Amino acid sequence: MGQLLRVQNFAVSRDGYGAGEGQSLERPFGHADPDALHGWAVETASWPGRTDGGGSRGLDDYLVRDFSHGIGAEIMGRNKFGPVRGPWPDHEWRGWWGDEPPFHTPVFVLTHHERPSFTLADTTFHFVGGEPAEVLEQARAAAGGLDVRLGGGASSIRAFLDAGLVDTLHVAVAPVEIGGGSRLWESPEELLDRYHCDVVPSSSGVVHHLFWRR
Amino acid sequence: MGQLLRVQNFAVSRDGYGAGEGQSLERPFGHADPDALHGWAVETASWPGRTDGGGSRGLDDYLVRDFSHGIGAEIMGRNKFGPVRGPWPDHEWRGWWGDEPPFHTPVFVLTHHERPSFTLADTTFHFVGGEPAEVLEQARAAAGGLDVRLGGGASSIRAFLDAGLVDTLHVAVAPVEIGGGSRLWESPEELLDRYHCDVVPSSSGVVHHLFWRR
Repeated sequence: MGQLLRVQNFAVSRDGYGAGEGQSLERPFGHADPDALHGWAVETASWPGRTDGGGSRGLDDYLVRDFSHGIGAEIMGRNKFGPVRGPWPDHEWRGWWGDEPPFHTPVFVLTHHERPSFTLADTTFHFVGGEPAEVLEQARAAAGGLDVRLGGGASSIRAFLDAGLVDTLHVAVAPVEIGGGSRLWESPEELLDRYHCDVVPSSSGVVHHLFWRR
Repeated sequence: MGQLLRVQNFAVSRDGYGAGEGQSLERPFGHADPDALHGWAVETASWPGRTDGGGSRGLDDYLVRDFSHGIGAEIMGRNKFGPVRGPWPDHEWRGWWGDEPPFHTPVFVLTHHERPSFTLADTTFHFVGGEPAEVLEQARAAAGGLDVRLGGGASSIRAFLDAGLVDTLHVAVAPVEIGGGSRLWESPEELLDRYHCDVVPSSSGVVHHLFWRR
């Protein structure tokens, strides 16, 4: 199969939203409650921020710990990178993740506004325009033969899905309604003409949807 | 948590058998049908023997591809290593796996009968006696800080479970009855006093049981 484009651990509400309305520095997910979307991942032993040696080691943990396996680059939308919109006022904003971002690979941020690349620890952020296929080509070239992760948000995933570029897609559907914001789908059934799907309920309350190409 | 002892992708029948009666060179799983136990894994994209680029990429694939992640050594029972019983008549038998075994780490084979270590490609087999805790100590020392996989068969897993040494346990329960042979349990419920368990049915027909310590 060569280098896959993979969506991993992307969480949406039951009504299909990956984030709410009004994203800001204080509320990266807008009016949506981040815990309701991502609590299932935070509770696992493999969650990157965990230092207490605890956490669950069941189904959710398998999915969380697969995050970086076999991945050589990430593509993310500008709204995942940060709350700044329009032309960059300066280059102060360097992502939500502090001095040690959890990516450990090149990251390609989708934007129409030019900005120089920069490096934090072992993660280098590049800012790229162009069509999804062109961006994917750049990310594959930088991935050292490994797969590329498509990190979200919802509108970036939609753009790559609509271009037919996504090979596998893991979406965790959380038991919450958001009602508005950045939407991935009205229903996972929209993808069933093009993808196989394993629907796997977890004891944490989310329902994992694991898609791969037909 | 330090170095975990993990059982991964171990398949048993609905009545709890990991292999049937009468293991031999021709029938490594005795009278049991290997496909009925392991077909779910063979059908995945990540199955080590696959070269056609196909295979499923859903739930079963996540479990199969986790096989070697974070693992630095394996412990296996002598009956997993081969069909020879009693004192070694010679050192001709070098495992079921040909010149390139799928382990890529040191492997510790449980036996009361001494035999020199040997290496095939990047897998070295050691032959060790002693109590489970002593063997685990040796395997941990060889694992370079990584986890240790307990590869089976059923009686080896039982011995380490009964000694309280297993940290996580993934057992795929296949929709088949075997009726006799090497048995892991009468029911997965036997472990619930000591372990959490996620019970996860797969579209392939097996039911994954993912245990971790309480």
